[in-house]
Amino acid sequence: MANRNTTEIASLGEFGLIDRLTSRLKRRNKSTLMGAGDDAAVIDLGDEVMVMSTDMMTEGIDFDLGYFPLKHLGYKCVVRGVYDILAMNAKPEQLVVALGISAKISVEALDALYEGMECACEELGVDLVGGDTTASVNGLVITVTAIGRAKKSDVVYRSGAKEHDLICITSNLGAAYMGLHLLEREKRVLKDVDNPEPQFAGYEYLLERYLKPRARKNVLEALREEGIMPTSMIDLSDGLASDLRQICRSSRCGARIYLERIPIAKQTTDLAEEMHIDPVIAALNGGEDHELLFTVPLEMQEKVMRLGLVDVIGHITREEAGVVLVTPDGEGIALKAQAFDR
Amino acid sequence: MANRNTTEIASLGEFGLIDRLTSRLKRRNKSTLMGAGDDAAVIDLGDEVMVMSTDMMTEGIDFDLGYFPLKHLGYKCVVRGVYDILAMNAKPEQLVVALGISAKISVEALDALYEGMECACEELGVDLVGGDTTASVNGLVITVTAIGRAKKSDVVYRSGAKEHDLICITSNLGAAYMGLHLLEREKRVLKDVDNPEPQFAGYEYLLERYLKPRARKNVLEALREEGIMPTSMIDLSDGLASDLRQICRSSRCGARIYLERIPIAKQTTDLAEEMHIDPVIAALNGGEDHELLFTVPLEMQEKVMRLGLVDVIGHITREEAGVVLVTPDGEGIALKAQAFDR
Repeated sequence: MANRNTTEIASLGEFGLIDRLTSRLKRRNKSTLMGAGDDAAVIDLGDEVMVMSTDMMTEGIDFDLGYFPLKHLGYKCVVRGVYDILAMNAKPEQLVVALGISAKISVEALDALYEGMECACEELGVDLVGGDTTASVNGLVITVTAIGRAKKSDVVYRSGAKEHDLICITSNLGAAYMGLHLLEREKRVLKDVDNPEPQFAGYEYLLERYLKPRARKNVLEALREEGIMPTSMIDLSDGLASDLRQICRSSRCGARIYLERIPIAKQTTDLAEEMHIDPVIAALNGGEDHELLFTVPLEMQEKVMRLGLVDVIGHITREEAGVVLVTPDGEGIALKAQAFDR
Repeated sequence: MANRNTTEIASLGEFGLIDRLTSRLKRRNKSTLMGAGDDAAVIDLGDEVMVMSTDMMTEGIDFDLGYFPLKHLGYKCVVRGVYDILAMNAKPEQLVVALGISAKISVEALDALYEGMECACEELGVDLVGGDTTASVNGLVITVTAIGRAKKSDVVYRSGAKEHDLICITSNLGAAYMGLHLLEREKRVLKDVDNPEPQFAGYEYLLERYLKPRARKNVLEALREEGIMPTSMIDLSDGLASDLRQICRSSRCGARIYLERIPIAKQTTDLAEEMHIDPVIAALNGGEDHELLFTVPLEMQEKVMRLGLVDVIGHITREEAGVVLVTPDGEGIALKAQAFDR
């Protein structure tokens, strides 16, 4: 359909497409407190709210069944779906799954997929309450839509970050991205080998981070117990650079993060060097981290550090200062979301 | 992945796959009143419930962009998504949309899709509150997940049909199925023609039924105003035979429907004869009708007929009697869901 008179989606840039599509949306129900524009929609239930979010994964883009075991895939799609609920500081309770099933998928393959989904549901205390299955001409498609509940006053939006707030993340970054690169490399290398034996020794952690990301529900519980209320929060899925820019855009603020404070696992650095990839690029722009990025008031610094679950990587500034990465020699580099702008 | 040791999905039959996948699901939250097994999941909100349902459409299976205008497609996917909420007798309020976008889709094409979605949302009083976009290697994929609310006592399940209840439908059947056949025929005929001019004259109604199905919200409102509470209800999407069997299965009952009472539009019969298709097969097994099938107590007969919005096509029997189609000469034929069993 695209021809000379039409616009390619890529030309709209990082936020352009979403803005264009959502700008026309109207709110007709007073129960709609928050529509598009955050991790999840927020629906009024009185004292409480319901939050709701949807996430699609397509074969060939979001996963390769050549090396992604179906049980892990089921696990991961539930974790991804639920993360948007967690990122609103809500308790995920139910989800529905829509599947587009290609002819090559057997009943046993679906069993494995559902086994993985139930495994994640069990860990997260969520109920899989329904779904839809349709055929798919080309490849497996999975859409997980999750809902959760929170007290109205507990909901954390992307838009609440204030100057001087601390920027926190829940784990080292770039590991899932390198895990994906490792799987892709072994697939290339072993393409024409009869009994392929992929070489993953020493890099198991990276594979786990890509194939079986963990939902950091425990961090949210710890924050709650300590009385630390984040001012803003987002699911780290597109990469630190892009997701931090989302927070800054929604909160109309800037940010300074410090390169030497961004945690990168040794396996990530080792494999990145082996593959001639800059580990900092993996950490900033790799994506697929599936961790939480959030801000807390400066006075919470000691409490947050004491948790031992979080890294503080920088602080929020005024909007005019932009979103800046500070190198060890003190130089400030404007952060771009390379995944979109390249 | 399917090989000699695996099971093909088709071999599980009409209800086999869903049963197999959902049998392992656990309920962990007391707010989960109803999981898989009806048109929508039901979630406890106190006096009220929230109902939630998801619906996926994939290119090449559920639509052909060769003849399905994107604006109509946007409209239809919202109507389909909302129908499951209506079929629970709930008020649809919000929905989220996940899109898998192939490279050939331009920004203008997405604009048209969203325009159609907003058009349906406006008619149905629903808010599109968020979504997800991902790339898709092969073809457009759309998942609509809708939620709605109802008083707990107003929810209508599939499982409430009782012996002697009347079986009602909200429109003639088979028209959308014949509309699809017409579009497919013109596509075949005009495949190699430079400036194709498809011949649709006289059959516009069939095209509209396929391309722009209407959600029968007005029927539900009329039933409510007249104090008629359905005992069971389902969205007619797989065809009358399959969907009636779903009601009978959930309600542990049988049914007798009368062939001469099943409304079939003249255009449907005309085109079916022209294309050597049995119009009764189109009406019973065609699917895509997107109407409501419901049962009401026998004593509501006069009230229901007076509405002028509904056809009564038969009645509920005991389970042992099976699901039977009665021909004009009084013969009873066991109804099969051909879409699955062939």
